[in-house]
Amino acid sequence: MSALRKAMQEIGRHILKVAETISDEEIEKIVTVLINARSMGRKIMVAGAGRSGLVAKAFAMRLMHLGFYVYVLGETITPPVAPGDVFIAVSGSGMTQVVLSVARAAKQVGAIIVAITSFPDSPLGKIADVIIRVPGRTKIARESDYFTRQVLGIYEPLAPLGTLFEDASLAFFDGLIVELMNKLNIGEEDMRKRHANIETI
Amino acid sequence: MSALRKAMQEIGRHILKVAETISDEEIEKIVTVLINARSMGRKIMVAGAGRSGLVAKAFAMRLMHLGFYVYVLGETITPPVAPGDVFIAVSGSGMTQVVLSVARAAKQVGAIIVAITSFPDSPLGKIADVIIRVPGRTKIARESDYFTRQVLGIYEPLAPLGTLFEDASLAFFDGLIVELMNKLNIGEEDMRKRHANIETI
Amino acid sequence: MSALRKAMQEIGRHILKVAETISDEEIEKIVTVLINARSMGRKIMVAGAGRSGLVAKAFAMRLMHLGFYVYVLGETITPPVAPGDVFIAVSGSGMTQVVLSVARAAKQVGAIIVAITSFPDSPLGKIADVIIRVPGRTKIARESDYFTRQVLGIYEPLAPLGTLFEDASLAFFDGLIVELMNKLNIGEEDMRKRHANIETI
Amino acid sequence: MSALRKAMQEIGRHILKVAETISDEEIEKIVTVLINARSMGRKIMVAGAGRSGLVAKAFAMRLMHLGFYVYVLGETITPPVAPGDVFIAVSGSGMTQVVLSVARAAKQVGAIIVAITSFPDSPLGKIADVIIRVPGRTKIARESDYFTRQVLGIYEPLAPLGTLFEDASLAFFDGLIVELMNKLNIGEEDMRKRHANIETI
Repeated sequence: MSALRKAMQEIGRHILKVAETISDEEIEKIVTVLINARSMGRKIMVAGAGRSGLVAKAFAMRLMHLGFYVYVLGETITPPVAPGDVFIAVSGSGMTQVVLSVARAAKQVGAIIVAITSFPDSPLGKIADVIIRVPGRTKIARESDYFTRQVLGIYEPLAPLGTLFEDASLAFFDGLIVELMNKLNIGEEDMRKRHANIETI
Repeated sequence: MSALRKAMQEIGRHILKVAETISDEEIEKIVTVLINARSMGRKIMVAGAGRSGLVAKAFAMRLMHLGFYVYVLGETITPPVAPGDVFIAVSGSGMTQVVLSVARAAKQVGAIIVAITSFPDSPLGKIADVIIRVPGRTKIARESDYFTRQVLGIYEPLAPLGTLFEDASLAFFDGLIVELMNKLNIGEEDMRKRHANIETI
Repeated sequence: MSALRKAMQEIGRHILKVAETISDEEIEKIVTVLINARSMGRKIMVAGAGRSGLVAKAFAMRLMHLGFYVYVLGETITPPVAPGDVFIAVSGSGMTQVVLSVARAAKQVGAIIVAITSFPDSPLGKIADVIIRVPGRTKIARESDYFTRQVLGIYEPLAPLGTLFEDASLAFFDGLIVELMNKLNIGEEDMRKRHANIETI
Repeated sequence: MSALRKAMQEIGRHILKVAETISDEEIEKIVTVLINARSMGRKIMVAGAGRSGLVAKAFAMRLMHLGFYVYVLGETITPPVAPGDVFIAVSGSGMTQVVLSVARAAKQVGAIIVAITSFPDSPLGKIADVIIRVPGRTKIARESDYFTRQVLGIYEPLAPLGTLFEDASLAFFDGLIVELMNKLNIGEEDMRKRHANIETI
């Protein structure tokens, strides 16, 4: 079987595994924080570097479809963070410097800090009010998590660098969106009405 | 079980299913096009609107880690497209107007057009030299693909709007990266050396 | 005198000249459209390609500081355009394809189209409800608008490509912000409170 | 005269004034650093927050047109900084936290740091190898630098917040491009060939 297929299976199975390990308590906490922010007119701000930042943006887009006041750190029209706003930081290692420095600034302002990370004990985890632990590649990976490079016969991971964390975080956020649809009683049709339109006409 | 968990399972299972359905011929075509472009010093340009655009960027970042000359349409330092360059357009419907108009312009210039889409017969599919079909939510979905909203008891999809297409496309691209690592004999350590550094120090 | 200094003078003088040529009627129209949008809770959406797009973003940031509901086409949390919203397109030539296609879509939806362009008779100008003519380099430029390249002794413009249009458009928008401060009775201190904060702490 | 016109004049005159005050030595230093980087195949990386970041991007786009290896911090395909690369940070105050933290990281890696700032003694200025001082609004502004708000009769600056620094920095960078065209013997036609194309067809 091709390396491509094996890698996709690795990702799909990782998402299924993470679906089991996320704790109910963690889910309830983040749902409560988000719904409260929405009902009290608080802003949600998302941040992340590299691919984690892209995952954060994909989540922000859906929050907008659900009627949240959501912004992406570093984009043009991002307003200041105010006390009671929610700051969502995505960082697998929990140590990404640019994310950490803005998260600290947001905490100082009085925002509620939500960390999506593989490491609850990381610097980011330590300042977070809510932590969602999304595991990446485990240190003790099984042999089946690797493919053999054809030319040199060397073992390489089926999901290099932060891939497993990033793809599982996206799936987690997409699951969270469905949970919020449920709790807020918002359907797909309502979301479609808030979807950007003029790029597609 | 929470809607969140069920939705994550829906996504994980969809990725596993897509891993089976992507044809070997499609995989071989896109791998060949990309490897040829790299060895001949051709540029890769990726484009997509909304969340599909974010998926395209996540792929571009990894291609950069593999030493490709890759650019994202609309970013600051994107150079012109030249004959023989590869233009990768991501659009579930294959009808996103802004993507379609630049893809047509790229084709006119002489680029090789690769379409990642659910609909090979779409306008985008029709101008593509290589088509990767990534299915999204099927029209005839089973009852288990939906959750019941608590308040009104209405059925809603477990993955609203383009979610399944977007998440499966990301997993496909990540699988493709592993395939390219294999074929190009590039390991994770080589990729780490091309990873952005100063954001994390 | 260095080419750098001469080029800066060319830009400074061009801005002074454009300050004289913008018509009072044009100014009044765009001010009215923007203030009405703000008081009726309508969205402002800005768009532009390349450096014109950066100028549009710089304007959007200041509109946000003035309390407008403003969005940048192509950014993450951009909502759909609705009838009565204001769509501001920046294009020197008035022919930039990607800008034109979204402007047309916005018009179809019922938005008020504002064009910032050097060519009122361009395709963009023709669909615009309000046109601000910002001239760029004139075809019949005087000899003093050029510098002589040292090596080959060839005449080159002191402001290549769209530079004069772009820099004058930025100055126009910044002037428009002061006009809006005046009309809306908003001071610098109020703007500072809406300025992004956590990047600077 | 309208506030808009007066504000544009303020900006135009400020640019003319800055054209005089930039020192020849500063110009020579930055030109040398950039040309050396280009001839040795070193990367240029630009960074800035908010509107200063947009100005940095506008400069990066033109450097690309001149054939430099230039990247924007935070964009998708930005590679790691290496020893000998040039890191250009734009910050009026010289204290913008996110810019400062990446500039420090870049310095640690061995990059040449160029600061565009109003304050050479700022934290950013202190770690810079080359400083270009671009003044903003002077503390002791003359009465004519202000307009009177109609409703309350209060004096407000004709260029609020960082406007003068930002617009003058853009003009400085555009002047620098002409200086580089001159030194590198590159004409407008060569630049046009490196200009993004498919957005405009």
